[in-house]
Amino acid sequence: MADKIKVALNGYGTIGKRVADAVARQDDMALVGIAKTRPDYEAYVAAEKGYDIYAVDAAKAGPVFKEAGLQIAGSNEEMIRKADIVVDATPKGIGAKNKALYEKLGKPAIFEGGEKHELTGISFNAAANFDEAIGKQYVRVVSCNTSALCRLVYAIDSAFGIRHAHVTLVRRAADPDDIKKGPVNAIVPDPITLPSHHGPDVQSVMPHIDIVTAALKVPTTLAHVHSVSISVKGTPLRQDVVDALRKWPRIWLIPPLYGIKSTAGVMELGRVLGRPKGDMMENAVWEESVSVDKNGNISLFQAVHQESDVIPENIDCIRAMTGLAKDKLKSMAKTDRSLGIGTLKPWRDFPPHAEGVEAVTAR
Amino acid sequence: MADKIKVALNGYGTIGKRVADAVARQDDMALVGIAKTRPDYEAYVAAEKGYDIYAVDAAKAGPVFKEAGLQIAGSNEEMIRKADIVVDATPKGIGAKNKALYEKLGKPAIFEGGEKHELTGISFNAAANFDEAIGKQYVRVVSCNTSALCRLVYAIDSAFGIRHAHVTLVRRAADPDDIKKGPVNAIVPDPITLPSHHGPDVQSVMPHIDIVTAALKVPTTLAHVHSVSISVKGTPLRQDVVDALRKWPRIWLIPPLYGIKSTAGVMELGRVLGRPKGDMMENAVWEESVSVDKNGNISLFQAVHQESDVIPENIDCIRAMTGLAKDKLKSMAKTDRSLGIGTLKPWRDFPPHAEGVEAVTAR
Repeated sequence: MADKIKVALNGYGTIGKRVADAVARQDDMALVGIAKTRPDYEAYVAAEKGYDIYAVDAAKAGPVFKEAGLQIAGSNEEMIRKADIVVDATPKGIGAKNKALYEKLGKPAIFEGGEKHELTGISFNAAANFDEAIGKQYVRVVSCNTSALCRLVYAIDSAFGIRHAHVTLVRRAADPDDIKKGPVNAIVPDPITLPSHHGPDVQSVMPHIDIVTAALKVPTTLAHVHSVSISVKGTPLRQDVVDALRKWPRIWLIPPLYGIKSTAGVMELGRVLGRPKGDMMENAVWEESVSVDKNGNISLFQAVHQESDVIPENIDCIRAMTGLAKDKLKSMAKTDRSLGIGTLKPWRDFPPHAEGVEAVTAR
Repeated sequence: MADKIKVALNGYGTIGKRVADAVARQDDMALVGIAKTRPDYEAYVAAEKGYDIYAVDAAKAGPVFKEAGLQIAGSNEEMIRKADIVVDATPKGIGAKNKALYEKLGKPAIFEGGEKHELTGISFNAAANFDEAIGKQYVRVVSCNTSALCRLVYAIDSAFGIRHAHVTLVRRAADPDDIKKGPVNAIVPDPITLPSHHGPDVQSVMPHIDIVTAALKVPTTLAHVHSVSISVKGTPLRQDVVDALRKWPRIWLIPPLYGIKSTAGVMELGRVLGRPKGDMMENAVWEESVSVDKNGNISLFQAVHQESDVIPENIDCIRAMTGLAKDKLKSMAKTDRSLGIGTLKPWRDFPPHAEGVEAVTAR
C-alpha cells in the first residue's frame, strides 16, 4: 500500500476532535497530531487515544502540560511541517489568520465553514462538487447547515431540476457543552434580515441554484431542523422524490416505523447504535414528511447534527486535494464504510477499526 | 344608546378569560358571566372583577365555591338563557358537544379554533371574511396561528394576488402556565406529515389561497414565529410590500430601531406598554425581515402571541353575528381602540376604560 497521507489537525474543538478521530480510522491517512492550548479533559482523552499533542507556543505550554502529567510533542509549526495537509478547525476567523503560515510552509489546508468563501475560492461538498477540489491547495468545507442543504439540494436538483427553494432553518441555539449562549425561552430570528447567509453559501458550491433561506435560533442543543420547500421542473410523484433522495449517501430517510418523532429521537438513534459521541452524520429526512403538491412543490423536514455532519465531508476533501481519490462516489463509500454512515450496524462491528493511531513520527 | 348585546362566556381558560375582559371593555356589549368548575385563583380574580360566576352543575359546585368564600350565580344553562350570544371557549372537542345546548336554547354561539370547520360551516377572520358571519347563528373563530396567517395572507393577496405560499410555523411548545408539556430540549416536527392543518385552515376562510404549511414545536412558551415565503403575481418592490402590510390593522411592523430581536422582545413590548396580561394581539412582523427576490417571492418573519391574537377577532365576530356592525373596518377600529391594539400608548390611557362590569341581571 502507498504511503499514507499525513494529516495535521490545527484546532481541536467540536469539529477538530471529530475529524481527528475520523482521520485515525482511515487506512489511507495517518494523524500527525492535534493542537491544544490547555491540558483540559480533551487533552487527557487525546493523549489516551495516542494522539501527539502540539501547541502554538510550545515553550510556554510545555511546562503547563508537564505539570498536568501530559507531554507536548512540539510546536504547531513542527506539527504542520510533518504533515502533507492541514485541517484547520480553529474558531471562526482564526483560520483566515493561519493561512499565511500554511503558505509559508507550503502545505495545503482545509478550512471550515466559519471562514469566508473568498479565503479559498472553493467551497466543498462531496456529493455536489468533489471534482472542483481535486489537487487544490486551499479548500473550504461548508458549515453544518450548508453541508446538509447541499446534499439535499444536489440530490433533488440532479433528479428533477430546481426552480426555486425556500428553506427555514430552525437552529439549535448552542452545542450541548456550550453554557454561554441563549436563549432560555424565546424564538430568535437570526439574522432578522432575509435571506440568511445559508442560501448564498449553498450557491458558493452550486452557483446555479435559486434558493432563499431563513434562520431562527430556538432553545435546544441537539440538532437543527430544516423545513424545506423546493419547486422543481415538472411534477414528480412523491415516490420519485423519495427514491431520488434514497439513492444518495449521507441522506437517511427515517421510516415511520422507527418511531422517531423529533431531534431527540434522531440523536438517540446515534446513541443506541453506539456511534462515537452519539453522532448522526447523515441528513435525517423524515420519510413521512416528504410531500409534493399538484404544482411540483416538494416539502419535507430534515434534522441536521451540527457537530458531526461535516466530518465525512472533511475526509473526502482530504482525498480530493491530495489525489487519494478521483471518484467522489468511491471516496464517499470508503469514508462512510469507515465511519458507519448509513447503516444500522452497531459501531463496534465497523471495518476498519483503527488499532490505535499510527505514529507518523516513528515511520 | 341601544341595548347592549349580552355575552356569556362558556369556558374561562386561556382564551375565555381574555374574551371576557375584552367584552367587558366594549360599550356595545355586556358580560352576562363566565363559567367555572373550580374555585381556583382564576375564580377569585373573576369575582374581584365583578364577573358573575356560573357552573355546569350549580348544585354540586355551589357548596364548594361557598366554602371558598365565593358565590355561584347559577347554572351554565341559566347563564346562557340570559345571553344574546355565547362564546364557547371550552377545551377542544367540548364545544362540539355543547352545540346541542345552544341549539336547544336557541342561542347563537361562537366556537374557537380547536373545533372543526364543519361544526359551523363558517370560519372567521375579521379582515378576511367579516361579511360571511353577518347574522349567522354559529361561527368558528380560527386558531391563533391561522388567525395570524389569515391577516397576513389577506393583506398580501388583496394587494398583489398570491400564487403560492409556504409557511413554516415555529410553534411555542406550551403556554406559560402549562407545566404538562414538552419538549425540554428538542425540535419536534408536529405533525411530521406535510402539510400541517394550518394551510387547509386558512383555506376554510379564504378557499382560493394556494398555501402549504409546515409546523414544528420548540422548547419555548412565549409566542410562535412564522417563517413566510409567498410568491405573488408580478414583482412588487420591497416598499410596496411594507406599505401593503402597514395599511391593515392588527399587523404591527416592528421597526429596527425598537431593537426587538426575538419573541421575548415582542412580548416585553406588550408588558412595558402595560397591556393586560402583557398580551400582544397584533401580528408582530419584523420590518427588517421583509424581502422580495427578483421573481416576486416575498419572505418575512412574524411573531404570533398564541394566547391573545384571536381576542379582537372574537369581539368582531360577536358584532357581525348579532348585527352590531355591518362594516368590518369600523368594527375592527372600534375593537382595536378599546383594546389598545396598534398603538404605543400605555394601556391606562385607553378609552373606553370600563367602570367595572355592567351587571346584566340588574338591568
